[in-house]
Amino acid sequence: MPERHPTLVEDGAAVLVLDQTRLPREATMVRLATLEDAAHAIRVMQVRGAPLIGATAAYGVALGLAADASDRRLDHVLAILGATRPTAVNLHWALARMERRLRKSVPATRRDDAWHEARAIAGEDKAANRAIGQHGLPLIAAIHAALGNRRGHPPDPLPREGGDYFSQAAPCVVNVMTHCNAGRLATVEHGTAISPIYAAHAAGIAVHVWVSETRPRNQGLLTAWELAEAGVPHTLIADNAAGLLMMQGRVDLVIVGADRIAANGDTANKVGTYLKALAAREHGVPFYVAAPLSTIDFACPAGSGIPIEERAAEELGAGAVPVANPAFDVTPATLIAGIISERGVAAAGDLAQWR
Amino acid sequence: MPERHPTLVEDGAAVLVLDQTRLPREATMVRLATLEDAAHAIRVMQVRGAPLIGATAAYGVALGLAADASDRRLDHVLAILGATRPTAVNLHWALARMERRLRKSVPATRRDDAWHEARAIAGEDKAANRAIGQHGLPLIAAIHAALGNRRGHPPDPLPREGGDYFSQAAPCVVNVMTHCNAGRLATVEHGTAISPIYAAHAAGIAVHVWVSETRPRNQGLLTAWELAEAGVPHTLIADNAAGLLMMQGRVDLVIVGADRIAANGDTANKVGTYLKALAAREHGVPFYVAAPLSTIDFACPAGSGIPIEERAAEELGAGAVPVANPAFDVTPATLIAGIISERGVAAAGDLAQWR
Repeated sequence: MPERHPTLVEDGAAVLVLDQTRLPREATMVRLATLEDAAHAIRVMQVRGAPLIGATAAYGVALGLAADASDRRLDHVLAILGATRPTAVNLHWALARMERRLRKSVPATRRDDAWHEARAIAGEDKAANRAIGQHGLPLIAAIHAALGNRRGHPPDPLPREGGDYFSQAAPCVVNVMTHCNAGRLATVEHGTAISPIYAAHAAGIAVHVWVSETRPRNQGLLTAWELAEAGVPHTLIADNAAGLLMMQGRVDLVIVGADRIAANGDTANKVGTYLKALAAREHGVPFYVAAPLSTIDFACPAGSGIPIEERAAEELGAGAVPVANPAFDVTPATLIAGIISERGVAAAGDLAQWR
Repeated sequence: MPERHPTLVEDGAAVLVLDQTRLPREATMVRLATLEDAAHAIRVMQVRGAPLIGATAAYGVALGLAADASDRRLDHVLAILGATRPTAVNLHWALARMERRLRKSVPATRRDDAWHEARAIAGEDKAANRAIGQHGLPLIAAIHAALGNRRGHPPDPLPREGGDYFSQAAPCVVNVMTHCNAGRLATVEHGTAISPIYAAHAAGIAVHVWVSETRPRNQGLLTAWELAEAGVPHTLIADNAAGLLMMQGRVDLVIVGADRIAANGDTANKVGTYLKALAAREHGVPFYVAAPLSTIDFACPAGSGIPIEERAAEELGAGAVPVANPAFDVTPATLIAGIISERGVAAAGDLAQWR
């Protein structure tokens, strides 16, 4: 069994993060020793995934205060880290929490307080994601039971050639579709959308995951990598194939993560999520969002208030061709069957209970 | 102005085709001199696009009869070419037409008759596609007029960062989204879905094309290449971005090609088309299919009868990861505003008029 690389771990006065720009080719840890290292890691997506961005930013504050823990330096550190990426709200949530804690500190203890608070954020992320898995597990178990009780399987709505992956549609295998990477690699541990899948797998429920490639950055390969590491059956597909698979009755459930959830339940997530949500509604496939409470932005009333990050044209790798590259889209709450957080499962339109 | 490469041209006793597996990196012609050359070119997608596949197969019959024009050889040639790709019906249409013509020939004149009939098919493809452009032009002109009459533009439903491509949403530019390549490269000349766009551009109507990358084979790069060659403004996007752009009101019209249209109007086209059709309906964007009559399979009553080609896992380039790679999906007729053929524009549910 190969060594299992953590996504983020303390290492003396630095932190080590798994360089996700090199996955799945190679799993190497990169050392973040300074504010600039942390900001760079977030910006170029050595770390990615809303929860992991938040935890990395928290440690980035601690790193940034190493030599100078003055109020002025704290302002600077928060500004640099806050400008790294616009859409994921966990970044701003973590920085706001660090700021609240550290404004109360005197400069003499501020550096230690920063490490302590960053450690708390990372620990709480693990616990929240584990709880998300436990709250999502009954959904998968219920689908599994329903499929098992069925006699046989409905006939294929569409004939097709080849592809023994279709045997994954055996009645007792729960076929879950996800998008991007919302697994352990997107978090400090356990994942968000993938956490219920890990919980189901650990509980002996047969699950199979449809993994979207997730152009332009191919984070689906990260999902495939970590599912393989965990021994969870999975199949990579082009993002374009999601509608066909749902039409063919090959998808029982969709679970995705989130980068920011507005107060009304509208959810920003990796671009392409919205197309899957529309197809899921069309075919009666339940569509869930899994995210810790830190992803909910109660200050943002609706999805129209969420800024959409535009990333570099180079990500599409098409040379001199004019490119538009929005990194996220917004799925309206009306398409979401429920939001799974560490507090349980809520209707997307009923998040005020978690305020 | 660079030399404009034809997609398919006769060259003595052979045909030259533009090798589309090398585009957009380099434009080189490959010589097809034998049956095997033609079958290979279709199978590995040196030629692609339903109409061009049909024309290439027709010439493939002529090439295959070069040394032996017996009935037995004709059977063999038709079988080899018929097995190259399953979904595009134009292939089978062209082979059936060649067979009908050549069964009446005596072997002595059969080779010449084959060349003659292949030439006729290629010529008719050009004429049909030019007519598709003329029939589609009024749709674009009508949208252009409507936008021009509007005072200003609706406010952005979603704020976003950067991206001056959004200036393409100026009131008088018609933003057309397409998928895959259904331009001149998919045909002998003019294209199908892109033919109305070329007609509008030639008529002085400002059009801008959203070009989907079209994973896994990135035929969107072919579309970008030929639009650049023709001077038509365009922007490449990841397939995943289609829903966001429609939600933002940045798409006025969707036109796609087709690989097979069932008698009831259900349309098989490149995988991912269906997701765009669902998003178009959600946002009130007219969704049209443009294809010559040879793409309509009246023997196939509905989309459920269309075989979906499963292509090699290698196309996703993900190494040892398990992959599913269906190449097409089916868009139900109910999502299609109309089918544009050389005969005009018909409701998808009313194709019998063209029988």
